[in-house]
Amino acid sequence: MVRRTPVLSSRTISDATGSRVVLKAENLQRTGSFKLRGALAKLAALGERSSAGVLTGSAGNHAQALAYAARARDVPCEVFMPTTAAIGKSEAAAALGATVRLVGANVYDCVAAARERADESGMTLVHPFDDPDVVAGQGTIGLELLEDVDDLAAVVVPVGGGGLASGVAIAVKSQRPEVKIIGVQAEACAPVAASLRTGEPVVAGDALTIADGLAVKRPAEFTLGLMRRWLDDVVVASEDEIAEAMVLLLERAKLVVEGAGAVGVAALLAGRVRVPERGTTVTVLSGGNVDAGLLASIARRHETEAGRRLVVLTRVDDRPGMLARLLALVAERGANLVEVSHVREGIDLHVRETAIELVLETRSRQHAREVLGGIADAGYEARVLR
Amino acid sequence: MVRRTPVLSSRTISDATGSRVVLKAENLQRTGSFKLRGALAKLAALGERSSAGVLTGSAGNHAQALAYAARARDVPCEVFMPTTAAIGKSEAAAALGATVRLVGANVYDCVAAARERADESGMTLVHPFDDPDVVAGQGTIGLELLEDVDDLAAVVVPVGGGGLASGVAIAVKSQRPEVKIIGVQAEACAPVAASLRTGEPVVAGDALTIADGLAVKRPAEFTLGLMRRWLDDVVVASEDEIAEAMVLLLERAKLVVEGAGAVGVAALLAGRVRVPERGTTVTVLSGGNVDAGLLASIARRHETEAGRRLVVLTRVDDRPGMLARLLALVAERGANLVEVSHVREGIDLHVRETAIELVLETRSRQHAREVLGGIADAGYEARVLR
Repeated sequence: MVRRTPVLSSRTISDATGSRVVLKAENLQRTGSFKLRGALAKLAALGERSSAGVLTGSAGNHAQALAYAARARDVPCEVFMPTTAAIGKSEAAAALGATVRLVGANVYDCVAAARERADESGMTLVHPFDDPDVVAGQGTIGLELLEDVDDLAAVVVPVGGGGLASGVAIAVKSQRPEVKIIGVQAEACAPVAASLRTGEPVVAGDALTIADGLAVKRPAEFTLGLMRRWLDDVVVASEDEIAEAMVLLLERAKLVVEGAGAVGVAALLAGRVRVPERGTTVTVLSGGNVDAGLLASIARRHETEAGRRLVVLTRVDDRPGMLARLLALVAERGANLVEVSHVREGIDLHVRETAIELVLETRSRQHAREVLGGIADAGYEARVLR
Repeated sequence: MVRRTPVLSSRTISDATGSRVVLKAENLQRTGSFKLRGALAKLAALGERSSAGVLTGSAGNHAQALAYAARARDVPCEVFMPTTAAIGKSEAAAALGATVRLVGANVYDCVAAARERADESGMTLVHPFDDPDVVAGQGTIGLELLEDVDDLAAVVVPVGGGGLASGVAIAVKSQRPEVKIIGVQAEACAPVAASLRTGEPVVAGDALTIADGLAVKRPAEFTLGLMRRWLDDVVVASEDEIAEAMVLLLERAKLVVEGAGAVGVAALLAGRVRVPERGTTVTVLSGGNVDAGLLASIARRHETEAGRRLVVLTRVDDRPGMLARLLALVAERGANLVEVSHVREGIDLHVRETAIELVLETRSRQHAREVLGGIADAGYEARVLR
């Protein structure tokens, strides 16, 4: 029932790291993430015991995965989600036939509510990671890598609750103990990295991260023990590194990868992981569930930072030909006009002036500076908005 | 040297069409498009005759493909591109080792310049589609489909110059004549659809389309003849349909597909293609070369149209607490504040007022209307900017 996701080579990342790097495109998995593997494995292990139904607490990928798995096995499914969950995610779980209950402020409240409901209903709680069957299911990615990657030398894998990392590590190292397994967390929420470093379980604080799928503040003792035994290292990636990795995967690999799924690429490009000189390093793109709005934001930000986009607010006298002169000036400097808007209505402008917002495409930061210089030299005010 | 690209099922598109639809993810091909197949086939056919080098005129995918193929076979490559070509595309060809020459205003000028240079230099012109070897190379997609899709019933394929459509049709129908092959053009530039309908070669006018890779105004007689013989039908897709298909592929299939590559999905979702009731329909996602800026634009537009994003310009008295009151109001109505900007500086506001631009995330069009109603009821002006 799971898709055997493709392994895709990436020249860009290979060149950047000086080693052969390939991508396990688990973002192309059904339901958009690796979570389906664990959910299906758990339902298979439960067998008849799941007939009263299954439930879980989750804000995202695990909820969709369990809903899909339950439907495939024809058992009822309830999902407890935070009241703040994106409407797209609750709708996706409902569309897969799950009963969605919005409760509490965060995932911990939801898991607690699910546990309570399990006790009273006879339905079975399927925890997102604190469960050997779930870990075993995620490990199937490791089995596929052993078959599909000839000279496997290292696997770089995202770490949230630790189910994916543990499962892959056990699957791979049981057959090939010399293969390095390196976990990656988001710097903003990295309790596993801290726990392995200090030898004590660390609980992370509240943190917002673009890799929201990894924002598990308190990993389970079970998975923490597995990771201590089976992982070679756990490193972190910063928010900027993760966002840039998402854009690179969009532009070069043509893949939509969520923040949590891009941490491996982020860590590789930032040099936070030492890749083996020989053999192939795999990074697992664990999921692709990210809405169009966030994609647009990171793509825009990237364009702006790369000097490929310039948004300028300026003003022109409200006389015929003044706007045309400004636009001619911009065109002469080689900038491409994407959008021009008058900011005249909705604002009281008492002088005979019109405010103009220009959105320009430029070739580089240097070019953007030249265009701005040209506008200023001609006597126009120009404020860079973004 | 080409990647055997995966065939991915899509529940969303299958449900929408009432038939099994799968995606041939040729956007994951090296260089980001199917064009590599034709370029490599041509170089293989030339053999020693290519040793003086190859050249072509192209604004995009074919240029990158030929540069890649030439490097792989260690022969010189020159690419003539329009002076208006996106800097990203000329840089990509140069990074692959090609000599890039910027000439002329459009692709026709570039092909003409390349032809002239071929005559004087002894290098070989590799036309993007008017060449039997190139058509044969694109046809390898058809051979893969015959092997990889058990109950192949129809193939929906983009049509620009016609090399891809002809090659796939010949490869598939030579072995399985009952399989339907349906071409799709962008409505804004559809000379092939018109030519097959009228029986006369039609030349399209200048047209801008989001499927810029298909904007071939005058297909070759050679490929037109092949398409007349081998295709069952050629339909068109509108700009809006293509943009929506691109967003759906991003959000659901997790794939970045350029406009030209999304026309098949667009036509299927718009009901412009009658899919066979039995068997599997394949649509070829022919390429994924689209820059982050365009992706951001279509994703934003989609969010706005779906009522998930609202940009409002309003004004508040320039007194303490007025902005806080507005934001509290918006929050009470359940809208998520993404961005708030003062539009005070850069514009002369002579009254004691501040203009405020709010970017809000909303759940639906209905919800967006409720939020706007709430702002108006509280006595604020509110202009929807987009």
